[in-house]
Amino acid sequence: MSQFERSGARATDALRPVCITRRYTAYAEGSVLIEFGGTKVLCTASVEEKVPGHKKGSGEGWVTAEYGMLPRATHTRSDREAARGKQSGRTQEIQRLIGRSMRSVFDLKKLGERTIYLDCDVIQADGGTRTASITGAFVAAQDAVNQLLADGKILQTPILDHVAAISVGIVQGTPLLDLEYTEDSACDTDMNVVMTGAGHYVEVQGTAEGAAFSRQEMDALLVLAEKGIAELIALQKNSLLN
Amino acid sequence: MSQFERSGARATDALRPVCITRRYTAYAEGSVLIEFGGTKVLCTASVEEKVPGHKKGSGEGWVTAEYGMLPRATHTRSDREAARGKQSGRTQEIQRLIGRSMRSVFDLKKLGERTIYLDCDVIQADGGTRTASITGAFVAAQDAVNQLLADGKILQTPILDHVAAISVGIVQGTPLLDLEYTEDSACDTDMNVVMTGAGHYVEVQGTAEGAAFSRQEMDALLVLAEKGIAELIALQKNSLLN
Amino acid sequence: MSQFERSGARATDALRPVCITRRYTAYAEGSVLIEFGGTKVLCTASVEEKVPGHKKGSGEGWVTAEYGMLPRATHTRSDREAARGKQSGRTQEIQRLIGRSMRSVFDLKKLGERTIYLDCDVIQADGGTRTASITGAFVAAQDAVNQLLADGKILQTPILDHVAAISVGIVQGTPLLDLEYTEDSACDTDMNVVMTGAGHYVEVQGTAEGAAFSRQEMDALLVLAEKGIAELIALQKNSLLN
Amino acid sequence: MSQFERSGARATDALRPVCITRRYTAYAEGSVLIEFGGTKVLCTASVEEKVPGHKKGSGEGWVTAEYGMLPRATHTRSDREAARGKQSGRTQEIQRLIGRSMRSVFDLKKLGERTIYLDCDVIQADGGTRTASITGAFVAAQDAVNQLLADGKILQTPILDHVAAISVGIVQGTPLLDLEYTEDSACDTDMNVVMTGAGHYVEVQGTAEGAAFSRQEMDALLVLAEKGIAELIALQKNSLLN
Amino acid sequence: MSQFERSGARATDALRPVCITRRYTAYAEGSVLIEFGGTKVLCTASVEEKVPGHKKGSGEGWVTAEYGMLPRATHTRSDREAARGKQSGRTQEIQRLIGRSMRSVFDLKKLGERTIYLDCDVIQADGGTRTASITGAFVAAQDAVNQLLADGKILQTPILDHVAAISVGIVQGTPLLDLEYTEDSACDTDMNVVMTGAGHYVEVQGTAEGAAFSRQEMDALLVLAEKGIAELIALQKNSLLN
Amino acid sequence: MSQFERSGARATDALRPVCITRRYTAYAEGSVLIEFGGTKVLCTASVEEKVPGHKKGSGEGWVTAEYGMLPRATHTRSDREAARGKQSGRTQEIQRLIGRSMRSVFDLKKLGERTIYLDCDVIQADGGTRTASITGAFVAAQDAVNQLLADGKILQTPILDHVAAISVGIVQGTPLLDLEYTEDSACDTDMNVVMTGAGHYVEVQGTAEGAAFSRQEMDALLVLAEKGIAELIALQKNSLLN
Repeated sequence: MSQFERSGARATDALRPVCITRRYTAYAEGSVLIEFGGTKVLCTASVEEKVPGHKKGSGEGWVTAEYGMLPRATHTRSDREAARGKQSGRTQEIQRLIGRSMRSVFDLKKLGERTIYLDCDVIQADGGTRTASITGAFVAAQDAVNQLLADGKILQTPILDHVAAISVGIVQGTPLLDLEYTEDSACDTDMNVVMTGAGHYVEVQGTAEGAAFSRQEMDALLVLAEKGIAELIALQKNSLLN
Repeated sequence: MSQFERSGARATDALRPVCITRRYTAYAEGSVLIEFGGTKVLCTASVEEKVPGHKKGSGEGWVTAEYGMLPRATHTRSDREAARGKQSGRTQEIQRLIGRSMRSVFDLKKLGERTIYLDCDVIQADGGTRTASITGAFVAAQDAVNQLLADGKILQTPILDHVAAISVGIVQGTPLLDLEYTEDSACDTDMNVVMTGAGHYVEVQGTAEGAAFSRQEMDALLVLAEKGIAELIALQKNSLLN
Repeated sequence: MSQFERSGARATDALRPVCITRRYTAYAEGSVLIEFGGTKVLCTASVEEKVPGHKKGSGEGWVTAEYGMLPRATHTRSDREAARGKQSGRTQEIQRLIGRSMRSVFDLKKLGERTIYLDCDVIQADGGTRTASITGAFVAAQDAVNQLLADGKILQTPILDHVAAISVGIVQGTPLLDLEYTEDSACDTDMNVVMTGAGHYVEVQGTAEGAAFSRQEMDALLVLAEKGIAELIALQKNSLLN
Repeated sequence: MSQFERSGARATDALRPVCITRRYTAYAEGSVLIEFGGTKVLCTASVEEKVPGHKKGSGEGWVTAEYGMLPRATHTRSDREAARGKQSGRTQEIQRLIGRSMRSVFDLKKLGERTIYLDCDVIQADGGTRTASITGAFVAAQDAVNQLLADGKILQTPILDHVAAISVGIVQGTPLLDLEYTEDSACDTDMNVVMTGAGHYVEVQGTAEGAAFSRQEMDALLVLAEKGIAELIALQKNSLLN
Repeated sequence: MSQFERSGARATDALRPVCITRRYTAYAEGSVLIEFGGTKVLCTASVEEKVPGHKKGSGEGWVTAEYGMLPRATHTRSDREAARGKQSGRTQEIQRLIGRSMRSVFDLKKLGERTIYLDCDVIQADGGTRTASITGAFVAAQDAVNQLLADGKILQTPILDHVAAISVGIVQGTPLLDLEYTEDSACDTDMNVVMTGAGHYVEVQGTAEGAAFSRQEMDALLVLAEKGIAELIALQKNSLLN
Repeated sequence: MSQFERSGARATDALRPVCITRRYTAYAEGSVLIEFGGTKVLCTASVEEKVPGHKKGSGEGWVTAEYGMLPRATHTRSDREAARGKQSGRTQEIQRLIGRSMRSVFDLKKLGERTIYLDCDVIQADGGTRTASITGAFVAAQDAVNQLLADGKILQTPILDHVAAISVGIVQGTPLLDLEYTEDSACDTDMNVVMTGAGHYVEVQGTAEGAAFSRQEMDALLVLAEKGIAELIALQKNSLLN
């Protein structure tokens, strides 16, 4: 079978150009613009010296995320969630995923009784907004933690490992890494994978959009994802150098 | 390492007793009480002769799901979502999952311009409510489709295959099939798997609650899930015989 | 005038078969499935060791109720209130009625600063859901109180008397006890009566659905209601024996 | 037992001074300020040439009511429902009662496919706001109907009879007509009665606030209510003369 | 150019008849019905012995306003905001304006840690409801402050000056004072001006409804407004004499 | 009196550096990032081929605006409006202002029955977000109109003139142009002015935050605003050249 041809002659196992810009806005403790090709997400980390009710008095902190999309981030304008008066199921699902992913690499005890909010706002959407959000939010969180260390508010980092995420999917029978919008719309199977720097899984969410997928197909996708996440973690590390 | 001991000396790869009661309530086109041990979910299928906006005039039908939990289905009373005025992120995530799972085995063209609503209401919750919901909702949907066929409203079944779901997880290092509440609370990794009768994946949602999990662990969980789902589909078939 | 003929040749002054099943679910302090013919309501009583704001520091407790209906409890599917984001006026009216009825037989001082929540969830609706809810909720409340006594949390029962409720109405000129759905839809006058074991009124709510009703008609309805409630209270007592 | 002494030496079976002012505001088809002593309610009737969905194409009209209370109508300020974002259960219960009461004397066929909205807004509350609302809303509705007749939009009145309402209650053992706020707060039993000009019941809503009430007590209250409503209907007729 | 002719041959620089009725309702600390011609607004001032969160422990009080309109205050019925479940942008804009205007003449320190709520409810609307609200609310606030002084709760008045408001606009090229509804609908430029007794500006809100307006036009409008407000403040003072 | 010293030695009548970047995102018909110093707002114009209800069948189009702020656009994190479930009064006030300002320079007839949505999302806030939004939204709207002209959907531009906005205020007695955040927080009087290319006023909104302001002060502010807006319109024109 002839392989699906990607835009820009991208290889099936290639990430789109990834660009991580730290200190993108001025006030947040961490502020990162992450771009996966045409997908652009602003990830900010905000530190607040209080915790939600279920953590009060526990000595532990909390890490949580919110996700939003500007109305015209997409090809056609979407309703503004604030105007509609509620967040969609999709938005809530994504922000819960980002939050769990971040907490998987945090020792909440070492964070102390404070909260890190990770706000991931999509400026432009071309597929993979949730995986870009996780990958960028980690860098913003790292910057916020570095600030806490620099200020002497914590003495040890609560961050245990890197975490990053990528989408993989099968389009016209071809397993692809890092789906862009047109690929995502056409795919039979879509999988989002979140992994740590140590190469372990934090989340695996595979969905058959069309036909159900076989064990062999899942295995092929997991191999692609592992490759992509290793590259993303290298890029995170590089961006944090300076 | 010594293995985690399950309540009732249940084997690590054993389902809890599963009970499927059809025609549980009188009015719905399909009405199924499904029990996975102490978890009891009432799944009803309701047919309405109209479709949501995005399907109008398409000649295609729609299959969707809603999920709810009675306030005292759980060990301690939860707030009633209708009283709080909104469904939680968890509820929305689950009902989206049930809906996608059902649609994966439906040919919406053959359904015609009508909607099947699958309402999954948890009467008692002891872990695995979303997987019981999917497994029971399929049987309710089948009953509703049989009614449509009997009434001559459709001539061919739109159902392409069975679909069922099960949870698997790793508790104290031991991979377990079909987690009950105490196991779910204690697990490091929790995975919900939805598969078709043909043995293909519809959804795989694995989450590291504690430590991230390795590829080997995921493989062990997938094997358990495949075994459990094959058994559930046999039970679905058996319950649909009479 | 020839009398209205009831389904199953039921006498005009006869209740439908009433079935009270205690300990229907596992976790609630009181859990009762009550059936008035085809109407099935799950009534749970949950004890929480706190009170709403207006009772804080008063030394008194509180008893309150919430009411819900599964979407397909009815002949055609109703919208889920949690999905619509608010409880209907009808729902609020019913749950306020149940709460007042329960409090009418409670000495809140003797309950101590704790709350009993009575959740009445309609599994199947064939008329009389609010009266079945009150009648069943009393049994669930009694079970919860017995638990508090057994646990030594209270030394004297706060329950002063039984309370039960029944609907009566005039259909085609015939006064009827315990209306089922088809009778309720056809009735000219509909009255819900709540009474104590001592035979006193807690609530009388009569509504002319069609023509306004005369004093004689009201008197006839009150006699029927008194008979029905006496029978219901006998059934409550019997169910509480074992 | 010595009788309860009412403010202003009012007799137990006496209404407070009732004042009905028609054409109170300029724009509504009917606009009535009704005063029961210190209770002042502005009742407007608005005609709209459309009907709600369930009446579309039926050839029938609809009559409905909304109820509100200015924040400082009461002794202490209440939250504004528009600011809280929802109407309380009490508000909804009252507006449903007003609507049913009005519809009981309307032939919706003769109204034609249009809606009469009755807005009852409490300017000052001293007990009996719902009964004043019903009594005043009838006069406003009559004015709106007269306008429709004068405009030739309908040829026959859809109004079948008068309707009015009064509260009765038992305070310290004494049955009283037309409770003011201090009496209402102190009463053991509170009953709202809605009757037609023909002397038939539209609604009877009796509630034991303290001890449950006996049949004899209810009978005494119904006699009082009948007397009060006859007087109110005479006042309605008188106000409609000019 | 021939001048725009006003209803009742009103001069271009004349206010409509203004009527200020104090103690209009019984319970509020200040209760003022203010009429600007056909516009009638009930302004009540309620004192509560607590402050919002941002003032707690500050030793300062707070003054805030809420605004509402009865559904049939207008020519055609508007939806009730409590029923729709939210206040419109217009309502919020107006109540924020009233609140700021009141606070501009209050020394919050001298008020002590208490709140004055100014509820402005429009009974009938014929243009200028926001300016009537501000002008009337000041009188209600003054009455509430006088009550606090009389009760010895404060020793010095926190009120620094009078404040009043008026609308001005350009209709068919003619600058007009105090627009009524038909003028407001037809105007090219609409300006609301809030001024103190000392003749200084608190708010100036000019809006071009049609063509943008020139500096000369604005100057003409400001002169008119200054004249009107001086008259309103004289009327406030007069009404507060007795 | 010594003059207030501005950051960066900015002159009292100087704008901050203004930067207008067109085509900032890929999908919107107009997409402009506008920066007033540290204030950065993304303004997108989206064309939809339908109009709101009040314009249906009129042959006229509609221009409207929505405004939002990313949670960490500000010094401390603000709640996300979509998560809170409603837009604040401030948000609604601002988006109504932007919408009115845009419509003041649009001939809605020439636009045809379509809507231009202007979404103004604040990426970073350092004072003046509403005036930057208006100034940037105009450029985005112009780009969208140019697209409609290029596509032949309209034959004549519906845009009648430029429109731009600036804030002015009095800080410590000194009138200042284009307030940044620290100035805005400290100012006694704050005025937002919206003007057309022809030098006429569209909106003037002056508010005394502290002491009321005199006519002379207002005049000084209007002169500053006129200077600033002329410069902004020159910058708009320049940015639209290429």
